[in-house]
Amino acid sequence: MTYCVGLKLNAGLVLLSDTRTNAGLDNIASYRKMFFFQQPGERVIAIMTAGSLSLTQTTLARLEEATEGEEADETSSILKAPSMLRVASIIGDTLARTRREIVEQHRELSQQATASMIVAGQRKGGDMRMFLIYPEGNFIEATEDTPFLQIGEHKYGKPILDRVVRPETSLADAQKAVLLSMDSTLRSNLSVGMPLDLAVIEKDACAITMRRRIEEGDPDFMQMSAAWSAALRDSFAKVSLGRQDE
Amino acid sequence: MTYCVGLKLNAGLVLLSDTRTNAGLDNIASYRKMFFFQQPGERVIAIMTAGSLSLTQTTLARLEEATEGEEADETSSILKAPSMLRVASIIGDTLARTRREIVEQHRELSQQATASMIVAGQRKGGDMRMFLIYPEGNFIEATEDTPFLQIGEHKYGKPILDRVVRPETSLADAQKAVLLSMDSTLRSNLSVGMPLDLAVIEKDACAITMRRRIEEGDPDFMQMSAAWSAALRDSFAKVSLGRQDE
Repeated sequence: MTYCVGLKLNAGLVLLSDTRTNAGLDNIASYRKMFFFQQPGERVIAIMTAGSLSLTQTTLARLEEATEGEEADETSSILKAPSMLRVASIIGDTLARTRREIVEQHRELSQQATASMIVAGQRKGGDMRMFLIYPEGNFIEATEDTPFLQIGEHKYGKPILDRVVRPETSLADAQKAVLLSMDSTLRSNLSVGMPLDLAVIEKDACAITMRRRIEEGDPDFMQMSAAWSAALRDSFAKVSLGRQDE
Repeated sequence: MTYCVGLKLNAGLVLLSDTRTNAGLDNIASYRKMFFFQQPGERVIAIMTAGSLSLTQTTLARLEEATEGEEADETSSILKAPSMLRVASIIGDTLARTRREIVEQHRELSQQATASMIVAGQRKGGDMRMFLIYPEGNFIEATEDTPFLQIGEHKYGKPILDRVVRPETSLADAQKAVLLSMDSTLRSNLSVGMPLDLAVIEKDACAITMRRRIEEGDPDFMQMSAAWSAALRDSFAKVSLGRQDE
C-alpha cells in the first residue's frame, strides 16, 4: 500500500508520501512516489502516486516524454499547458489511457491495474491548485472546505487532519500535521513504510521551497513521534468521561 | 456502515457499538447492534454485529430460539454450551448457515450478504474470552498482545486504541478509550452514527456490570469529545518538529 497526503493552504502546498511498495508480503521494496516537474519561478508541478507500480511508472514516463522534443506543445506537455486544470486533465488522460492498455494486456489473468494520483502546483500568474486524479482519469479538487487530499491507505491518518488542518494553517504546522498523520498510519499499517518524502511549495514561489527525505530512524521524526505519543497519553489521562470516571 | 469495538482487559470486558444502519444514503435508520444473553452470576454473553441487517437479525433470532424450549441443549444453546469456545462455534455456525441461505436466495441478483460479529463473555468457572467471528463462521480471539477487536468501519478509530489500550488498562480508562475511538470514527464517517451502546462486564461477575445508551447530544459524551479535541489541539501546538519548526 501507500499513503500520500497533500494540503492546499493559504500559504502554500505541503506534500508527504511514503515509499513502500509491495507485491505480496514477501516482496517489499522502496520506490519514490513523489515527482516534480518544474521551471523554477515559472511553474511547479508535484505528482504523488498510489497503486500499481507498473501503471504509475509508465504514466510518469509518458508525461515526462511528452515534455521533451519538438512536438511538446500545450496540449501534451504539462510544462506548457496553459493552466493547472489543463495539467490535471493531461495527467488524467495519460493515466486512463495507460491503465486501459495494461488492463487489456492482463485481460486473460482478470487482474486489475489501478492507480490514483495527487497533482499539486502553480504556474506564474495562476492560482495554486491541487487535484486528486482517479484511475479513470477524472478528478476532484481541494477547496477551502476540504484543504487536504489523500490517496492510498488514508483512513488511519484522517482524524488528525480533520481536527487541525484549515486553509489558514501555517506551513510549519502543516508539516507537523502531515507527519503526525503519517505516523498514525505507519503504526497501524505495515504496508506503509519509511523513508518518507516531504515537500513544501510556498505560494507564488512557483518552485519547490523545501524538499526532504526522512529516513528510517530520522532523529527529528522519532523525537516528534515520541513527543506526540506522550502528549496523547497525557491528554488521554486528563480528559474525563463525566459520570463513568469517578 | 457500523463501528463496534470490544476490549478484553484483565479487569473485564468493555464493549461499544453505534446504531446506524443504512441501505443507501437516503435510507438511514437506527438499529441496536449489541445483544446480551445471560443468566446473571452463571453466564454472560455479549454479541455485537456488523453487516447485512437481515443476516444479523436472522442469526440472532435463531440463536435466541435455540436457547428456548425442551430441545435446547449444550450443542445448540449458547446458554448451555460448556465453554465460551463452544459458544463462539455455535454462533459462527449459525451465522455461516444463515448467510449461505440468504446468498442462495439472492443468487440471481448476485448480491452478497455478509456480516461479522464480536462475541465476548464468561461462564462461571471459565475465563473471559472475546472472539471476532467472520462471515464464513471461523473466528479469531483477543489475546494479551491484541486486547481489542473491531468490526465495521475500524480504521479511523484504531490509532487511539493502538496507543492506549493494554491488558492492564482500567475499566474507566477503557471506556474513555472506546468512546474516543468512536468519536474519531463519527467525525470521519457519516455512516456511523449515534446513539451508542456502551457496556462493561467485570471479570468474574458473569453478568452485565454496566450498560448505557448514549444518545445524540449526551452532555457527558459531548463534554468528553470537546475536551479531547481541545487536548489534541494543545498537544499539537506543543509537539515540535525539530529543524522544520524554527
